[in-house]
Amino acid sequence: MNSASSLRILGIDPGLRVTGFGVIDKTGNRLSYVTSGCIKTNEKLTLPERIATILEGITEVIAESQPQQSAVEKVFVNVNPQSTLLLGQARGAAISALVNAGLPVAEYTALQVKQAVVGKGKAAKEQVQHMVVRLLALSGTPSADASDALACAICHAHGGQGLGAISTTGFRVRNGRLV
Amino acid sequence: MNSASSLRILGIDPGLRVTGFGVIDKTGNRLSYVTSGCIKTNEKLTLPERIATILEGITEVIAESQPQQSAVEKVFVNVNPQSTLLLGQARGAAISALVNAGLPVAEYTALQVKQAVVGKGKAAKEQVQHMVVRLLALSGTPSADASDALACAICHAHGGQGLGAISTTGFRVRNGRLV
Repeated sequence: MNSASSLRILGIDPGLRVTGFGVIDKTGNRLSYVTSGCIKTNEKLTLPERIATILEGITEVIAESQPQQSAVEKVFVNVNPQSTLLLGQARGAAISALVNAGLPVAEYTALQVKQAVVGKGKAAKEQVQHMVVRLLALSGTPSADASDALACAICHAHGGQGLGAISTTGFRVRNGRLV
Repeated sequence: MNSASSLRILGIDPGLRVTGFGVIDKTGNRLSYVTSGCIKTNEKLTLPERIATILEGITEVIAESQPQQSAVEKVFVNVNPQSTLLLGQARGAAISALVNAGLPVAEYTALQVKQAVVGKGKAAKEQVQHMVVRLLALSGTPSADASDALACAICHAHGGQGLGAISTTGFRVRNGRLV
């Protein structure tokens, strides 16, 4: 599935309601799409049950796609402290699933991820989505959460650096646009 | 180790720096001490490494003491949102370890725990510690974090209810004091 010279990266955009995941391969300087999606938890369940859903979901993604490294988006501190606490718990569960599987875990801020994918830190969600589609040559647009997870994996693929490090099939990127 | 009629409960007081744990047996209405302690993480390590320490620590406690149920203290929302986020992640990791081991996880607020152990919700930390020592007939005083974890297990032992449900060896409890 995975050639010796390529690196498979799992990106995670954690959330208690929806956790996005995205898997890409980096072969030399080329990136390619493997899989992506969302893990949704039932709001009517208890917190431990929702944490179990996140753990099981990520564990399943790892078992199916066999990544070698992982990258998790650093989450925002919310205005509502209770939401911040819930988000923190979801992120703790996501990192636990990665650690359980023995994966190295890198962390990137939303700013770093946007800088890496769009070329500027203040990009809109749609711009991130658009660039993920272009950079991975996707035929459809993944959901916002899956896109953010793929963007986090892309950010990790070029070492958390800006776009200079990526070379996609014949494109160059300037200010968030392929030229 | 664990007779058929007794229930072994693991209590957890989660924290990123220190996570307290305490294991007790409930046999009929009697409670007895099994073990307790603290899992400390190295502040110089990355968050994923610290989460790994919490996961491994709790997993080891479960493997050694074989509890059947678990109870985790609900954490306070801190004035500092960044601290709240870190605490949330530690708590998410603790719950992940319990869920991984297939344990049912109950949650109690500090108010419920204090009500259960001291008989009033506004008890000081020292009062909780004192009552844990008395209720479990300990010869020494566990650290504050271990005491809080034991208190959480005691709270679960009588169904999150007040002190009425506990009957310790010949004692009755009134307003946080054994009489």
